[in-house]
Amino acid sequence: MGAYAFGVDIGGTAIKMGLFETNGKLLEKWEIPTDTSENGSHILTDIADAMNEKIEAHKWDKHEIIGIGMGVPGPVDEKGNVLKCVNLGWGVFNIEEKMEKLSGIPTKAGNDANVAALGEMYKGGGRGYTNIAMLTLGTGIGGGITIDGKILAGINGAAGEVGHIPMNDEETECCGCGKKGCLEQYASATGIARMAKKKLAESNVDSVLKNDGEITAKKVFDAAKAGDAFAIEQVEELGKRLGKACACIACVCNPQIFVIGGGVSKAGSIVTDVIKKYFCRYAFHAASNTPFALAELGNDAGIYGGVKMVLPE
Amino acid sequence: MGAYAFGVDIGGTAIKMGLFETNGKLLEKWEIPTDTSENGSHILTDIADAMNEKIEAHKWDKHEIIGIGMGVPGPVDEKGNVLKCVNLGWGVFNIEEKMEKLSGIPTKAGNDANVAALGEMYKGGGRGYTNIAMLTLGTGIGGGITIDGKILAGINGAAGEVGHIPMNDEETECCGCGKKGCLEQYASATGIARMAKKKLAESNVDSVLKNDGEITAKKVFDAAKAGDAFAIEQVEELGKRLGKACACIACVCNPQIFVIGGGVSKAGSIVTDVIKKYFCRYAFHAASNTPFALAELGNDAGIYGGVKMVLPE
Repeated sequence: MGAYAFGVDIGGTAIKMGLFETNGKLLEKWEIPTDTSENGSHILTDIADAMNEKIEAHKWDKHEIIGIGMGVPGPVDEKGNVLKCVNLGWGVFNIEEKMEKLSGIPTKAGNDANVAALGEMYKGGGRGYTNIAMLTLGTGIGGGITIDGKILAGINGAAGEVGHIPMNDEETECCGCGKKGCLEQYASATGIARMAKKKLAESNVDSVLKNDGEITAKKVFDAAKAGDAFAIEQVEELGKRLGKACACIACVCNPQIFVIGGGVSKAGSIVTDVIKKYFCRYAFHAASNTPFALAELGNDAGIYGGVKMVLPE
Repeated sequence: MGAYAFGVDIGGTAIKMGLFETNGKLLEKWEIPTDTSENGSHILTDIADAMNEKIEAHKWDKHEIIGIGMGVPGPVDEKGNVLKCVNLGWGVFNIEEKMEKLSGIPTKAGNDANVAALGEMYKGGGRGYTNIAMLTLGTGIGGGITIDGKILAGINGAAGEVGHIPMNDEETECCGCGKKGCLEQYASATGIARMAKKKLAESNVDSVLKNDGEITAKKVFDAAKAGDAFAIEQVEELGKRLGKACACIACVCNPQIFVIGGGVSKAGSIVTDVIKKYFCRYAFHAASNTPFALAELGNDAGIYGGVKMVLPE
């Protein structure tokens, strides 16, 4: 058996690449730009070229590489079919077969949020567990569920799309997905800023956020930590929404742990603490002790999760 | 390898037993009473005795029985630990080990709602699928999720407890689980009757349900089918709650199909039609075409699911 494997995380502007030993040790990581021209038709060739360069530089035989695991910013089903990937210009095709043909190396692929969840399970905040639920609170909300150490992809590649759990029938603004009232509209970085802005505009409340330029999620957390009552209220609201959503998730798959990642999680334990507080209130009693952890791998979660898909168990 | 297996469904008043060929054909089914005296300590012995009688009557050798699969009315984790079973008087113990010791036959056990879901996947409304989500709308709401043809039990045996998805922060009455606002409080048979009663008492609306004695879920559906405007509104409300809950479930595990069972499902396609209508509204677009089916096995789902757990794949 070969001794090395690649983990690849395809993003809209950059592709993160990781070269690993099959024991999971990261040897090198680097990035190449994402060429979205001509419907993204150069992306896989660029990745294959970058890997070949690395293999040649090390003077390895291709058989020393056991596999390539890739995260893709769109739905991927269990058979490796990309079901459309708007950011990259991709339509529907089997990415595993295509990459294997291009590279001559066995390939696995999954949705990037799912693959990041697998990475956190493998080497990050979910280390030591096999059944985790990860929520990535960034510009939007991504999510990933692992069952028995493997990604739960779902029949349409839509398992773990927890950012689109319906939360509010009264919402008038649209989510990026076209619906109204999705979790993402309140609990993503964008959503946190949106809600704070809206509430400030609607009330006469005093807050440091009023005279601090454009409101961001980071500013809300900083103000809450500094004791600003309005900001604390926003954090509580956030905890309530996320705690309730996690209670829904627990009623479905009852994970061993929740891992919270993405830009919002950089605020630290204030995030997990407030989610946990409301989770206990909303969760079915048997699951109410489920622990919460912060993600640990940041932008490397994708390459760790990618490689995990092709490593021997 | 042996040629037969038992499927057992332990209920609070009766234990359903099924004798199957290993090809899944049901040969015989019968019931024995559930003896809950002395903390239910006779239950497993009674089951073992009933099986032994059957084995002796057929003059079979015990080695012809490949296994026993049992559904239990309480949480059971993936290792076969019963985590308390109030109805039966049971505490915490490993039911698989205990039954194997008593019977000399390999045993598997799961939560009864999960096992019923497996039964419906195997021979009922979810036939032909491996990843289903089942909702059993009875006195309460049970649920079960299958992934790749197997029960998703969850770390506390609480996966599929979809009756306790939080639905309403404003609820003042308590759910049986101790929380307020669970799906079960609105969409179980009891919940449907409760809501209809409450709404009738609060309004001056005219309805055949007003002069028809005690309101039941069945009466609500019958009145809706006969065109009663108030009853139709109740059915729409029910569809809205269940459609939203199914949208939550789809955001987590994105099943191939939803199967709706329990007493409420006896009303027929009016139930699945109205859930589907609202599901489409609330579901993430990738999952919005998920089909809905009625359960088909009724009270036999448990013995079919039980035996499925021990049959070769």
